[in-house]
Amino acid sequence: MWSSQNGETIFVEVTVEIILLAVVAGIVALVFALILAMNVTRQDPGSEEIQFIGRAIQEGANAFLRREYTLLAVFVVVIAIILAVFIDFDVTGRVGGGGGFPGTALSYLVGAIGSGLAGYIGMSIAVRANTRTAVKAMQGLNPALRVAFNSGTVMGISVVGIGLLGVSILYFIFRDITVVAGFGFGASSIALFARVGGGIYTKAADVGADLVGKVEQGIPEDDPRNPATVADNVGDNVGDVAGMGADLFESYVGSIIATIALGVAALGLASSVEGWNDPKLLLPILVATIGIGAAILGTFLVRTGEDADMGKLLWSLRTGILAAGALVLIGTGIAIYMLGLDFSLFWVVLIGLVAGQIIGTSSEYYTSFEFSPTKRLAEQAETGPATIMIGGLGLGMLSTVIPGIVIVAAMGLTYWFAGTYGVALAAVGMLSTLGITLATDAYGPVADNAGGIAEQAHLDPAVRERTDALDSLGNTTAATGKGFAIGSAVLTALGLMAAYAVAVGIDRADFSLLEVKVLMGLIIGAMMPFLFAALTMQAVGRAAGAMVEEVRRQFREITGLLEGTAEADYARAVAISTNGAMKEMVVPGLLAVIVPVLVGIILGAAALGGLLIGAIATGFLLAIMMANAGGAWDNAKKYIEAGNLGGKGSVQHDAAVVGDTVGDPFKDTSGPALNILIKLMSIVALVFAPLFL
Amino acid sequence: MWSSQNGETIFVEVTVEIILLAVVAGIVALVFALILAMNVTRQDPGSEEIQFIGRAIQEGANAFLRREYTLLAVFVVVIAIILAVFIDFDVTGRVGGGGGFPGTALSYLVGAIGSGLAGYIGMSIAVRANTRTAVKAMQGLNPALRVAFNSGTVMGISVVGIGLLGVSILYFIFRDITVVAGFGFGASSIALFARVGGGIYTKAADVGADLVGKVEQGIPEDDPRNPATVADNVGDNVGDVAGMGADLFESYVGSIIATIALGVAALGLASSVEGWNDPKLLLPILVATIGIGAAILGTFLVRTGEDADMGKLLWSLRTGILAAGALVLIGTGIAIYMLGLDFSLFWVVLIGLVAGQIIGTSSEYYTSFEFSPTKRLAEQAETGPATIMIGGLGLGMLSTVIPGIVIVAAMGLTYWFAGTYGVALAAVGMLSTLGITLATDAYGPVADNAGGIAEQAHLDPAVRERTDALDSLGNTTAATGKGFAIGSAVLTALGLMAAYAVAVGIDRADFSLLEVKVLMGLIIGAMMPFLFAALTMQAVGRAAGAMVEEVRRQFREITGLLEGTAEADYARAVAISTNGAMKEMVVPGLLAVIVPVLVGIILGAAALGGLLIGAIATGFLLAIMMANAGGAWDNAKKYIEAGNLGGKGSVQHDAAVVGDTVGDPFKDTSGPALNILIKLMSIVALVFAPLFL
Repeated sequence: MWSSQNGETIFVEVTVEIILLAVVAGIVALVFALILAMNVTRQDPGSEEIQFIGRAIQEGANAFLRREYTLLAVFVVVIAIILAVFIDFDVTGRVGGGGGFPGTALSYLVGAIGSGLAGYIGMSIAVRANTRTAVKAMQGLNPALRVAFNSGTVMGISVVGIGLLGVSILYFIFRDITVVAGFGFGASSIALFARVGGGIYTKAADVGADLVGKVEQGIPEDDPRNPATVADNVGDNVGDVAGMGADLFESYVGSIIATIALGVAALGLASSVEGWNDPKLLLPILVATIGIGAAILGTFLVRTGEDADMGKLLWSLRTGILAAGALVLIGTGIAIYMLGLDFSLFWVVLIGLVAGQIIGTSSEYYTSFEFSPTKRLAEQAETGPATIMIGGLGLGMLSTVIPGIVIVAAMGLTYWFAGTYGVALAAVGMLSTLGITLATDAYGPVADNAGGIAEQAHLDPAVRERTDALDSLGNTTAATGKGFAIGSAVLTALGLMAAYAVAVGIDRADFSLLEVKVLMGLIIGAMMPFLFAALTMQAVGRAAGAMVEEVRRQFREITGLLEGTAEADYARAVAISTNGAMKEMVVPGLLAVIVPVLVGIILGAAALGGLLIGAIATGFLLAIMMANAGGAWDNAKKYIEAGNLGGKGSVQHDAAVVGDTVGDPFKDTSGPALNILIKLMSIVALVFAPLFL
Repeated sequence: MWSSQNGETIFVEVTVEIILLAVVAGIVALVFALILAMNVTRQDPGSEEIQFIGRAIQEGANAFLRREYTLLAVFVVVIAIILAVFIDFDVTGRVGGGGGFPGTALSYLVGAIGSGLAGYIGMSIAVRANTRTAVKAMQGLNPALRVAFNSGTVMGISVVGIGLLGVSILYFIFRDITVVAGFGFGASSIALFARVGGGIYTKAADVGADLVGKVEQGIPEDDPRNPATVADNVGDNVGDVAGMGADLFESYVGSIIATIALGVAALGLASSVEGWNDPKLLLPILVATIGIGAAILGTFLVRTGEDADMGKLLWSLRTGILAAGALVLIGTGIAIYMLGLDFSLFWVVLIGLVAGQIIGTSSEYYTSFEFSPTKRLAEQAETGPATIMIGGLGLGMLSTVIPGIVIVAAMGLTYWFAGTYGVALAAVGMLSTLGITLATDAYGPVADNAGGIAEQAHLDPAVRERTDALDSLGNTTAATGKGFAIGSAVLTALGLMAAYAVAVGIDRADFSLLEVKVLMGLIIGAMMPFLFAALTMQAVGRAAGAMVEEVRRQFREITGLLEGTAEADYARAVAISTNGAMKEMVVPGLLAVIVPVLVGIILGAAALGGLLIGAIATGFLLAIMMANAGGAWDNAKKYIEAGNLGGKGSVQHDAAVVGDTVGDPFKDTSGPALNILIKLMSIVALVFAPLFL
């Protein structure tokens, strides 16, 4: 690459080079993921008993994905047709231009398929890595970490690879970012259902398994006699692996699209078609490209000695993430210099990376029992379940303050450096190292699964201890990951909202808070996360209820089950969870698409802008509150189980279990679903913007 | 009154008449309250034992108010000095004019004293009516209702009387609504501390009494052996009577002030001084005046036959409220016609009244066990405390939808009829019948107290049954009242925010959601209710913890207490609750004043506007969620106690008690405090507006 000051022709060459580089990086990422995947599957799959359990989980997970994707295919086709008719072929005559080629619909389909593919890859490898992690854990901590982490890396690197490939190729073909926005919409659609459906599945299975197994029958967690154990293990994969991957895939592509769209406005262009190759528009793609390289290099730093303890394991994960971040910054600095862009953009990317880390660390502070908030929460179990509930809700609410201030500061600074373009670019910076941050996050459920398998296959208790250590480490990185997912979702959604405002092209003053329609939209928007959280929590309640009935039925009707002489009907429990999740994800999913469109049509474009801001504000805070309250309850219980405050079986432990059970849908269903809600509504607004003029 | 079309001179006459009418209505209200109060105190105070308990409650309540008002006096004097220096004497030269007379500071002092006085009157009569209600309950349901309702009426009518007197006299003297805004600020300051302090007090005592008494020692509720019973009874008065009264006093005066301020803008006047006597500016005062008359007449309709059952009692309360609403509408219609104003303003007042009723009814639907949401919630107790917690949180979140849509619709319609002036006038309409709606609300704690006294004084169980019936009716009206308080708070705060925007006089476009500072303010604002709710919930936790320690200590150290041979040290428990509340109310209280001022100074006037809207949106939704979740848990417990789903003492009941305990700070401390937070921050912005230019 070379400086762009020499004129237009150089731009084109630089452009082609940058897009080419992005495509190469995407392909390299997928090849790297493939090599790692082969490495994982080459490992010893273990004894026949282990393989049997592993296959049951694989079949359950595949059955879920098959059902989910079949249902979604209908939804996706309907939306694609709507996009083709109203946007691409412009039957209402509002879009202007039209073009006659269904570009938006096509981008949408590619986005939906890309998101589905990323989820499928991540889950396929996770359900193969779990048994192999259990087998490796017989040897020691480090080999087990390697298998689990490699499988997480497959997921992380696939997500960024597919995401970058999709955005850069579509942008190169259409050169119109409003068409490429369809790719983001496709990714969001799948993400919503994956998060909501997966979240409902995993918690229905978890709560159902715990309430009947642990509480009513008094058998240990993950006991093979419990008919819901396989469903519980499947849930970790469909919820925490596939759901999380789809969520961040969406943020990743959304932030790039929003930055390009805002760059178009900043350059004063009418559309990206005329100046699509301006360095300012290509910078987000380039930062993401550099990020993929940095993430791949970072993964090589995640290794420890044979005698590694927990602290060293955590440190090795952190080293990988920090090194990747440093590499991104160096690469970005060089790129900005060579492209002749304003160096202030470097600070924007830095701010994005740092803000993500602070929000993640704040989540860790509030939810890890190494720190005082969760320790104090555990102490509130002394006076029973009511006080630990009040304490956890208070903790969750209080934990919104640091992320809130960080987001506000990041917004203010990046805007000061580079306008709304800067705010969106900060999200790209935050997500640039996603390949490795997602890997540290996605390996947790694999370790969790390995522990379950060790239990079910009656392996040496030392194996379970090692997988528990990995799982506990996974909880810490998962808390960080959740904070990170929320922070990036907010910046992405803000960028998309700003891009929407540019797209509808209405006056700055029309978005005024003194406009009653903006306020009306804002209150409706603020209400949406509450409605969404309520619907998803009640859905978990209903699906878990069905699971409880089924598990009770099996214990009642299958003679010899409790004694261990007869086998549980795992498949039936898996089917119950799958059906529950499918049924329950429809209403919240449709609401997220229909409400913004209706508000845009009935109350107008300004009201829809208000709706997005209202939803972003409350969605952000509610998501943080739910994630951190849930995480803190979970770890308060673990803290007591580690022998503090009376330990397992004490009254304090009973109280903490209540907190943990309430926290489950908080942190794994409703909270994460809010990330998607705010992004999906923003991208729906952006894609359908011409209709609201 | 006569038509204004004839010109300016008529206006002045009309004006003087309207102000005079308002002053007369205010005085009539206070005389009416005095007569009712004398009527209450004339009733038989009961046996020596009853009087002894009554005195203990009186002393406790007085001790709390004395401590609270002493602390607040310092705060009020400091703020008054700040107002005099920065606003009235204008040392920064930003206000322009200045005037040299400390009008704002004086209005502030009058507002603070007025609010304090209203709270004092309401509480003084409540702590005298409780014993007398218990005595009357020996005769029957109807005489007991009369005493309790009369005491509630004293509170309701005093609030509107003092409020209207203050606003109209100050407006007549200063003729400048920005000076009169100081009155609203004074009222808000006291309200905040009264709600927060009273809320912490009452829940610390309640939780402390329940956890040790009912759970640990297994003695019944309100048992005289429990050292916290008197504090618990005191709490009903300082929290539910004085706190609620101060809350609505603030909404009442705030809505009138906001409407006048927006009327000034609608008329295109530079300040209200020049056209202070325009019918449009006097209309809110006139509607409030008509409302006082209507409320007084309405109270006479609240009476039932001797054989009245619950349905009839509830109906008699509703008849009073509906009749008052009808009278207000008739009077307003005539007034608008005679003043020659646009008749669309009639519809605005009507919409306000109807919106208040719908929001109140929606709260009742979600929290009464007559309806399916609470019944289904009670059923979730079958699977333990965790599921009833999830269910209640979901119910609370879902219950934000109807009020949200009603507020959005009311905003849209009233704006369409009469601009932002119309939105504020709708709040005046909603609150016009406050004299009687507050009466139906404030009588509940009196009945609750009477029940406690009946228990402590070992009266015939039939007495307790009757007071329980009244109390249960009170819970229904309290739920309605809470919804009503929140709805009116939102409309008032929106009106104040619009008045603030006019006062800072910055451009409509500067308040755009595309301005990053507005968004930054909005996110900080949206965070404030979460922070505030967290702080108040944790405060209740700490204060309740201190109470638990004290009650345990007394049971341990006072020999013979549990056996009933020795007397508990009630005063000590009262002191613990008082100290806890005083200590804990300072930080949240100061935050509510300091944060908006800081944001205004550092980020500017537009950011402060964003902060207000953010806080209104999340404060509104969070307040509804907390109030309705709390109410539903409370009534789910009562539903089980009524013999359903296993009844008292069952596992289901234990689970429901957990819900109720979590719900207590939700519905009686944190939720209601959010009403005040949003109004206080709005009026702080309005009063200090000149400093942020």
